[in-house]
Amino acid sequence: MENIQSPEQLRKLNIEQKEALAEELRQELLNTVSKTGGHLASNLGVVELTIALHSAFDTPNDKIIWDVGHQTYIHKMLTGRRNQMETLRQLNGLSGFPKVSESEYDCFETGHSSTSISAALGMARARDLKKENYHVVAVIGDGALTGGMALEALNDAGFSKTNLIVILNDNEMSISKNVGGISNFLTKLRVRKGYKKSNAYIKKLVQKLPGDLGENIIHFVRKMKRGIKQLVIPNMLFEELGFCYLGPVDGHNIEKLEDIFQKAKRQEGPVLIHVLTTKGKGYIPAQTNPDLFHGTSSFDIVTGESLKKKQIDYSQVFGETLCKLAKKDDKIVAITAAMKDGTGLSKFAKEFPNRFFDVGIAEQHALTMAAGMAKQGLNPVVSIYSSFYQRGYDQVIHDIAMPNLPVVLCIDRAGIVGNDGETHQGIYDLAFLNLVPNLTILAPKDFLELEQMLSFAVTFSKPIAIRYPRGGEESFKFKQHEEINLGKAEILKSGTDVTILAIGKMVARAQKIAEELEQEKIETEVINARFLKPFDEITFLTSIQKTKKLVTMEDGICQGGLATTTLECLQKHGIQDIKMKHYGYPDEFIKQGKVEEIEEIYGLDLKTMKEGVCQLCR
Amino acid sequence: MENIQSPEQLRKLNIEQKEALAEELRQELLNTVSKTGGHLASNLGVVELTIALHSAFDTPNDKIIWDVGHQTYIHKMLTGRRNQMETLRQLNGLSGFPKVSESEYDCFETGHSSTSISAALGMARARDLKKENYHVVAVIGDGALTGGMALEALNDAGFSKTNLIVILNDNEMSISKNVGGISNFLTKLRVRKGYKKSNAYIKKLVQKLPGDLGENIIHFVRKMKRGIKQLVIPNMLFEELGFCYLGPVDGHNIEKLEDIFQKAKRQEGPVLIHVLTTKGKGYIPAQTNPDLFHGTSSFDIVTGESLKKKQIDYSQVFGETLCKLAKKDDKIVAITAAMKDGTGLSKFAKEFPNRFFDVGIAEQHALTMAAGMAKQGLNPVVSIYSSFYQRGYDQVIHDIAMPNLPVVLCIDRAGIVGNDGETHQGIYDLAFLNLVPNLTILAPKDFLELEQMLSFAVTFSKPIAIRYPRGGEESFKFKQHEEINLGKAEILKSGTDVTILAIGKMVARAQKIAEELEQEKIETEVINARFLKPFDEITFLTSIQKTKKLVTMEDGICQGGLATTTLECLQKHGIQDIKMKHYGYPDEFIKQGKVEEIEEIYGLDLKTMKEGVCQLCR
Repeated sequence: MENIQSPEQLRKLNIEQKEALAEELRQELLNTVSKTGGHLASNLGVVELTIALHSAFDTPNDKIIWDVGHQTYIHKMLTGRRNQMETLRQLNGLSGFPKVSESEYDCFETGHSSTSISAALGMARARDLKKENYHVVAVIGDGALTGGMALEALNDAGFSKTNLIVILNDNEMSISKNVGGISNFLTKLRVRKGYKKSNAYIKKLVQKLPGDLGENIIHFVRKMKRGIKQLVIPNMLFEELGFCYLGPVDGHNIEKLEDIFQKAKRQEGPVLIHVLTTKGKGYIPAQTNPDLFHGTSSFDIVTGESLKKKQIDYSQVFGETLCKLAKKDDKIVAITAAMKDGTGLSKFAKEFPNRFFDVGIAEQHALTMAAGMAKQGLNPVVSIYSSFYQRGYDQVIHDIAMPNLPVVLCIDRAGIVGNDGETHQGIYDLAFLNLVPNLTILAPKDFLELEQMLSFAVTFSKPIAIRYPRGGEESFKFKQHEEINLGKAEILKSGTDVTILAIGKMVARAQKIAEELEQEKIETEVINARFLKPFDEITFLTSIQKTKKLVTMEDGICQGGLATTTLECLQKHGIQDIKMKHYGYPDEFIKQGKVEEIEEIYGLDLKTMKEGVCQLCR
Repeated sequence: MENIQSPEQLRKLNIEQKEALAEELRQELLNTVSKTGGHLASNLGVVELTIALHSAFDTPNDKIIWDVGHQTYIHKMLTGRRNQMETLRQLNGLSGFPKVSESEYDCFETGHSSTSISAALGMARARDLKKENYHVVAVIGDGALTGGMALEALNDAGFSKTNLIVILNDNEMSISKNVGGISNFLTKLRVRKGYKKSNAYIKKLVQKLPGDLGENIIHFVRKMKRGIKQLVIPNMLFEELGFCYLGPVDGHNIEKLEDIFQKAKRQEGPVLIHVLTTKGKGYIPAQTNPDLFHGTSSFDIVTGESLKKKQIDYSQVFGETLCKLAKKDDKIVAITAAMKDGTGLSKFAKEFPNRFFDVGIAEQHALTMAAGMAKQGLNPVVSIYSSFYQRGYDQVIHDIAMPNLPVVLCIDRAGIVGNDGETHQGIYDLAFLNLVPNLTILAPKDFLELEQMLSFAVTFSKPIAIRYPRGGEESFKFKQHEEINLGKAEILKSGTDVTILAIGKMVARAQKIAEELEQEKIETEVINARFLKPFDEITFLTSIQKTKKLVTMEDGICQGGLATTTLECLQKHGIQDIKMKHYGYPDEFIKQGKVEEIEEIYGLDLKTMKEGVCQLCR
């Protein structure tokens, strides 16, 4: 089956051949991802679903939109990219998400959750207006369905008469264990075996019916209301929203899947197909522990053990520090949006189950709920990935900063994240949060400073954000960890030739450069900004007036970040004639690759920046 | 009843007295809002509801969170602010929204839609953890319920066992006519008269039952599935989500409302009370045309006619221009998030019903749906208010700008909006959109230029945003309207002494200042920026190198906007020794007041800015 490279070839196979293909693809996937790392469990779960979709639908004429997009590896293998899978998520290689530039089969780019129904409805409406003729299919997980915009889209789509197929890929997981009323509801649907069984149950009921009709039956009906609810209308929620509900169907049975897709294609109006899949299907370690194999680095296939040495990372330091602080302060609570493990909160969840809130993929709700908690005297700490804060921007502005409520915003995966690429690079947070009044913004230079900052933040009485990168601290031991004081930077090294102002992970690099330059007789003053906002103007201006030369370094876009802040500060104080160089990311989306590769491309590696500092001093 | 100023006094009244009070408050409200302007229809609709809430709940110990917050006028009158109502929405007067600083009865600040359930759940969870004892009530309209974050919150709340009361204030409207599956669903609930009638219906059914039981009844049940659905489980959607559903109840019957609230207070877990109200209740013009009286300026009570001369505004120019363009290009479609009238799209909706999409209060969905449409070859034009774009920031970045899709983002109500105050000031858009790669950003100097820009935008092949203010153009006639060229500014007046670079509505003021300064022998060069991004560096630098003096003027925050853009440009090109002055808003939330009042406070009025230019030239 290794020659199956396109849906056209796939469609010529019979069911047995397709099942064999599924096994082959699964093995190949396992081989690939065990080397490249990436999203494993979700892709193992959709092998049959992907085969059935490309069999039943006329792709690329029909459009399939994959929500979140990280479960498209099998889709990529079946659409001309099977031989390039070893480049997955590598620099200049295949993306881990759908990319229009890669293939005509990738019809819409996804990376963040819960966008697929909106996009699909837009496409379907475009098709209708242009009087074209194709099917539009959104494939969305049960986790992604808890995201507000997916529900907004369901609401709109259910109301329209538009032909549109939503496939609910229900694996009882979002990333961590799924939460919420919708999840409960789906569980009920899942337990039921469809309408046929209902009949048997009704028969049983009828046998129990009292001899007399009339009043009795009414009594009976009322008493059995609950039972009847569950009998007659498991699909109620979706049908009430205007969808025709089909399923549930076994998501690992290609034949049944194709049948139900054909049925859906004949249907008028919006259809929701409830497909049951198992995350990690076919690979025991992933099936047993799908959380661990949601996103994985390279691993040993036999044991399932990671090949990457488990190093302590910022998320873990955050989680452990928060546990320590929470022991002393029972008003501290932790909130995450479906990222318990990713944000390092597993330990907290275990130690303080009543004070831990996973709200599902629902960043907006997470933030405003935190505001409500803060208003009533708790100390809420929210941890969300940098690029997902884009989802909660209004809530930060309107619900937290405007009423000046003491919510601690922890921004994980800030800066370049690497292989996840464009959609996940956390390089905008400093800039867009910098615009928000009343907000204090910090970034630590290392683990210890994260601990200091978190301790500072949980007793701070106003909105405060701390951003830190994915992964570990740079291999540099700081001798100095001054106490955190509001709006105060830290001078790590005094010098007279040039000021390096760095923030977050870039501070280590600044200090290394400074130490190396000492040997070249360049006396560098290194300032660890600590606070982007309020910005320490005095420390900055004092230094700059001495050295007349400034280099800024940040792991984010220059525009609006630290670089811009220095320009604004200089202008405000009417200071001119400063030679300047800004290191950060330019005004473009930053592609995938190892963090070090990306940094080299954009000149943020140690060597390039050191040369830059030297040049400025010449 | 004019002495009733507090819930304490209110609770001593009997039902008849409360009903009399309701009439009094309604008249007072009408008198006030007819003078001050504000939100009328929604407040008329909640007179009885507000009285019943403060009667049944022990405010301020119990917490009432009003979603969107613009329906809190009656609440304000009943909580110590009855004598200050004539200051409503005026500079230094009462806010048109709940404000914690105004009253202990305002327990959470709202302004944007759909936040109340999140905030309430946060408060309820805080209460439980702190082992305190009070009720938390969220009052949310059926329109606000279509907002994604409200659904995220319902999902989370339904899953928790937390005691929490959600009052669904169902008036069949959001701001424009409500849309979506949820709305359809609510209509069905509304039509039903509750459980009691069901019994009668079941009796009727039973009489029609065939004589034999067994197989027959099964057939019957299956056939009547639809009927039974509607009988037994109207509340299904909410109950499936984990809420106990109470209602529907007449929202203008104080006694019934109090009863149901008492019942809800005794309930364990989350409760949803479905309250039916009439927007504009008791004032015929508002009841007949609630859209018109959603937000109103001062009006004649007898006729309902606005006292403000109806002037043409930017929204209207946008709407009419779009109609003209749509006649020539059948790929143009218009999208709004529950703001058909506000954004000037009523005419478009009438002329092109198939090409008009009101998605409800769902900015996130609106934007990603537009992306889907653009992907499939339509020319979608989305119109949303500036401060509501904060809700769709991730969608602009991730779904529109990243894949570089040609969506036209129209940003209405940009800049200072005036009396709505902090929550609605549209002063962040230029700054936060400026950070987004691939995005082109424009602002017109007057109506005619908006027409030019919109024509330019709908044929532009990339993401593009046009921002324009609330209300009309400044009384200034420009002689010049150069053709729009990508990234090109327009020089309106040449001069050698000082460069004024202005954008949007500030251009008129810049030109006026320049003309006045001619008499003082100051030769001003006036540049209409037109594009914030891509910024016209050549025109700017040429001018600045000539005059060595720069004044920027913008109707938004300086930080990250035009002011910052000029700093970044100067630094990039290594240009120093420029004297500068930036006019725009500082890093704080901007309070309510007439636009002119706010501008004067922040020194953005003609007089102050003219003096500033003079000073710079001295």
